[in-house]
Amino acid sequence: MLPMLSIDQAIERVTTTVRRPSAAAEEVPLADAVGRLLAADVRTDVDLPPFSRSTMDGFAVRAADAASPGAVLRVVDESAAGRPASRAVGEGEAIRIFTGAVLPADADAVLQVERTATVDGADERVRLEAAVRPGQNVARGGEDLRRGEVAVPAGSRIGVGHVNLLASIGATRLPVVPRPRVAILATGTELVPPDRVPTGGQIRESNGAMLAALVRRAGAAVAWVETVADDRDRIAALAGRGLEADVLLLSGGSSVGDYDFTPDVLAAHGVETHFDRVALKPGKPTLFGTLGERVVFGLPGNPISAFVSFHLFVRPALLRRAGLDDVAPTRFRARLDEAVPRIAARDQVLPARLRLDDGRWRVAFAGWHGSGDVTCLRDADALLPVPKGDGALPAGEETWVLPLDGGRLGSSALSSS
Amino acid sequence: MLPMLSIDQAIERVTTTVRRPSAAAEEVPLADAVGRLLAADVRTDVDLPPFSRSTMDGFAVRAADAASPGAVLRVVDESAAGRPASRAVGEGEAIRIFTGAVLPADADAVLQVERTATVDGADERVRLEAAVRPGQNVARGGEDLRRGEVAVPAGSRIGVGHVNLLASIGATRLPVVPRPRVAILATGTELVPPDRVPTGGQIRESNGAMLAALVRRAGAAVAWVETVADDRDRIAALAGRGLEADVLLLSGGSSVGDYDFTPDVLAAHGVETHFDRVALKPGKPTLFGTLGERVVFGLPGNPISAFVSFHLFVRPALLRRAGLDDVAPTRFRARLDEAVPRIAARDQVLPARLRLDDGRWRVAFAGWHGSGDVTCLRDADALLPVPKGDGALPAGEETWVLPLDGGRLGSSALSSS
Repeated sequence: MLPMLSIDQAIERVTTTVRRPSAAAEEVPLADAVGRLLAADVRTDVDLPPFSRSTMDGFAVRAADAASPGAVLRVVDESAAGRPASRAVGEGEAIRIFTGAVLPADADAVLQVERTATVDGADERVRLEAAVRPGQNVARGGEDLRRGEVAVPAGSRIGVGHVNLLASIGATRLPVVPRPRVAILATGTELVPPDRVPTGGQIRESNGAMLAALVRRAGAAVAWVETVADDRDRIAALAGRGLEADVLLLSGGSSVGDYDFTPDVLAAHGVETHFDRVALKPGKPTLFGTLGERVVFGLPGNPISAFVSFHLFVRPALLRRAGLDDVAPTRFRARLDEAVPRIAARDQVLPARLRLDDGRWRVAFAGWHGSGDVTCLRDADALLPVPKGDGALPAGEETWVLPLDGGRLGSSALSSS
Repeated sequence: MLPMLSIDQAIERVTTTVRRPSAAAEEVPLADAVGRLLAADVRTDVDLPPFSRSTMDGFAVRAADAASPGAVLRVVDESAAGRPASRAVGEGEAIRIFTGAVLPADADAVLQVERTATVDGADERVRLEAAVRPGQNVARGGEDLRRGEVAVPAGSRIGVGHVNLLASIGATRLPVVPRPRVAILATGTELVPPDRVPTGGQIRESNGAMLAALVRRAGAAVAWVETVADDRDRIAALAGRGLEADVLLLSGGSSVGDYDFTPDVLAAHGVETHFDRVALKPGKPTLFGTLGERVVFGLPGNPISAFVSFHLFVRPALLRRAGLDDVAPTRFRARLDEAVPRIAARDQVLPARLRLDDGRWRVAFAGWHGSGDVTCLRDADALLPVPKGDGALPAGEETWVLPLDGGRLGSSALSSS
């Protein structure tokens, strides 16, 4: 058994040990690229904007003709979006222009239509009610990006905010980092599949489904989910198959009881164990190992322990294997809604609920009958670290919270799965 | 033209007008249910826990036999997870037990193995080094949920925190609210598909791809995306097709220029327009209408305006049509990293970047060359409301921010798309 690490030491051990992937990039259509990590710089094949254009409906003019209000100009043509004018703007002339349309040659400004008046007469003329300065209401071609420039650098996580830019520069297929493939093996003689009714001493296998959902939510792919009884040989065989994936998650069997075979089995497969216990409640019997590039976690069989350990240790490993540098859990400050008891001997990390009170974050322990009570995860959208010590953290105390991906934070979102 | 609404008035008009869907529920497997909205209560078919069980490796005893430290008991059987003991605990007896195993009949407590010592002798005996109280290290059957109780109520958004519970109670198929289907129609003679190189006066159509990504991110489904030139008849025909979907989004053509046909076309289709302008920059020419249960938005052609309008007005409508009650954009308080200029005449809502400074939220305008500069959306993870007025909001000022779904908030997440 290795020295027990603190939570922060264990997170650091994971983030300094797990390497970015060495696999080649894969190419996906833009529509499937949101949430993926860009594997190479994407450069623009056009200037942005592609040409100098009007940002208003109005009249394209030479600013020198309209340095003071009241200038009257002849309207000689029209430039609409997708239908440029056929001629340049001459001295004393204006061209009617619409938002997004090409600025005609020799024009250098646009006066918005609301600041103009039509002038009666045989030919069409316009009076400019305001002075015009060069560049007014014009977006210059290439002012946002020059052709050949990097529009989105390698390593960027593609978000909804990238899509317009990528479509604008013709990046309809994108090189992305392959998703890490994760094998999930739940151990326990007591487990029956969720679609069966458990009888004497049995419970439904639920950690596999939970871990699969957490893995997908972290942007990784589930290679397979299997359940196996507490039988050393069968666990060894399936763990061997799991070690062919990028990441193997074992649920249960990682403690030191007579039927906890995970540490032995992994050692027999040549896995290097970096830690096998963390000074954490719930979540102490968490094992982290590597076999070359492959990553293994032995997670507690207790569902809440596994949920907490996943967020603290597994998720950063999956994000690193997906190509991200900055993978440590996000945390910010919030005030406690209610007192939370400390434990003298062990740091706790508890499922918690966030809420906003006049724009300020408040947090409360999600509550449980005991650490096996999975109903406490229903409304959890954060984890609440409670340092070891005597007495309680008092209500109103400012504390850290770790928001859960997939919680309400960021909106009352229905994310597409 | 209707009276111009304030931002809050417009959001309220959307949230009080758009109704929850009347369509029947659909059934999905648990693995596909994360992110969906539950259409009916889900009840448990078992007690949780299904039986009284040990939360520790140790010895199951009658607490009355061990009210003070030092009791020595005969070890008469074993209860492991999935393999219950074959007999009850008698007076003066103990049964070796493992975490998760059934508490044997007549036992009412478990002492963890670390607080026991083996006793030499012919039969197996154990000395309890600590006093034992009734219920110690035992999770009582049914203490979390009673068979028949509602485990997850209708209207819940299914998150990763629900999966374990749902698997534990055998809810492997779930009734969920159907995703709203959204038709997207981008208008503009200047538009060419993203895989073509634009020439004189053309630009690539990019709002369709952006809106499709935003729609999917909000948990809705994209029925189709089409592009059409500024031609009233063709727009009218496609808008008619779009009005067969649950929601129609029109991009461009919603202003008052000579080629802006959206308001007329929608009126001709019988759409009731609730607002057609919002006192907002960027995003003023935003139209919201309904045709019976169907919802229509006319969004500005300017990509950043459309992005802002989508988050403020369209997303709440999509969430309501997906069955959520609480759909107004989440907002919280953050401090400005840099001063932001106000505009005297109009409230602004600007793309912005959040960061954490020692656990406290800071926000900065994402910056742009002009309101057509889509590069400013690359790193945006929030919207920053800037009330109209003179001068600037100073650096250090506390302000509201609206976090974007899909931003970094909640983690440096790679969400599965």
